[in-house]
Amino acid sequence: MEFDAFKKLLKSDRTFRRFDETKRIDELTAEKLIDLTRYCASGRNLQPLRYRIVISEEECNKVFPCLKWAGYLTDWDGPEKGERPAAYLIQCLDTELTSNPLCDDGLQLQTLTLGARTLGFGACIIKSFNVVTIKEELHLPEKMKPLYVLALGVPKETVELEEISSGNIKYWRDEEGNHHVPKRKLEELIVRN
Amino acid sequence: MEFDAFKKLLKSDRTFRRFDETKRIDELTAEKLIDLTRYCASGRNLQPLRYRIVISEEECNKVFPCLKWAGYLTDWDGPEKGERPAAYLIQCLDTELTSNPLCDDGLQLQTLTLGARTLGFGACIIKSFNVVTIKEELHLPEKMKPLYVLALGVPKETVELEEISSGNIKYWRDEEGNHHVPKRKLEELIVRN
Repeated sequence: MEFDAFKKLLKSDRTFRRFDETKRIDELTAEKLIDLTRYCASGRNLQPLRYRIVISEEECNKVFPCLKWAGYLTDWDGPEKGERPAAYLIQCLDTELTSNPLCDDGLQLQTLTLGARTLGFGACIIKSFNVVTIKEELHLPEKMKPLYVLALGVPKETVELEEISSGNIKYWRDEEGNHHVPKRKLEELIVRN
Repeated sequence: MEFDAFKKLLKSDRTFRRFDETKRIDELTAEKLIDLTRYCASGRNLQPLRYRIVISEEECNKVFPCLKWAGYLTDWDGPEKGERPAAYLIQCLDTELTSNPLCDDGLQLQTLTLGARTLGFGACIIKSFNVVTIKEELHLPEKMKPLYVLALGVPKETVELEEISSGNIKYWRDEEGNHHVPKRKLEELIVRN
């Protein structure tokens, strides 16, 4: 694959929070995505992360109330019925293997979102959620510690990147409902002596 | 980009520990890679990670002794002269912005290694290193906390994936010097009720 094709995929891989809920994701697709994580590097090659697939409407309805959405959009409680994720992958740590997955979580989440994008889906990586309720609702084994919820669906919103101004990193939504995300300039990311 | 092309890139993106040290990486290439991280999702959109580029032979020679290599290969002290990385990106956390980068570290490291792969380079994500010495040798500002060292170069070894057997996850090297990495089966990664 060419660098430019990869960069294009990366740019298209935005955080999406509104979806076409009618477009569902089947088990095979979910497994195809999880299979990609097998090719990620893993600290000490432990491979301690596991996934619980949530695709039925019934289970999606159990997961949704456990999630917090878009902290900076204070007047928005999350996607309305019809625009909610069509599936979730619950990334869990097998705590019998280790208590510290190092950066495996991010390595795999980036892989999952990029993979999903190639299939026309979009994702939202969620860290703010009710861990106890999710564990209960999904009957997760005791040793499985949910680290992240990856919400998936066919995106139904546009997300635009823009350069940061005045140091303000808060994303915002314009009157047409387009989502805007300020990104730091390259120069700010490089430590120079 | 097609799913299969992405999966192929992912499979080619192994952890490499031996390189052709004569094939150097220039500043522009390093910056091109770091630029990719601008398109990664970021917890609370804080974007708190920074990179110190290490490309000169002089600085590479300062970084190398700070690194620990391949814990499971107990009779190998790391790559010999001539096979060492040609560059390093030191991923740092700007601790004035946050003390917790969530999974930003992994999201960006996966992006960097995949991007590097499209340019013919290979990478090794290193967590075991002497943080204090690296900070001193590279004169990093006090607020910058090195999280990971990404070693880069043109790979000079073959890495083969294999299915895990008898639960042994230790990677190993055969008599021809090929590196083997046991990976868990898909079924083991899925939590079923």
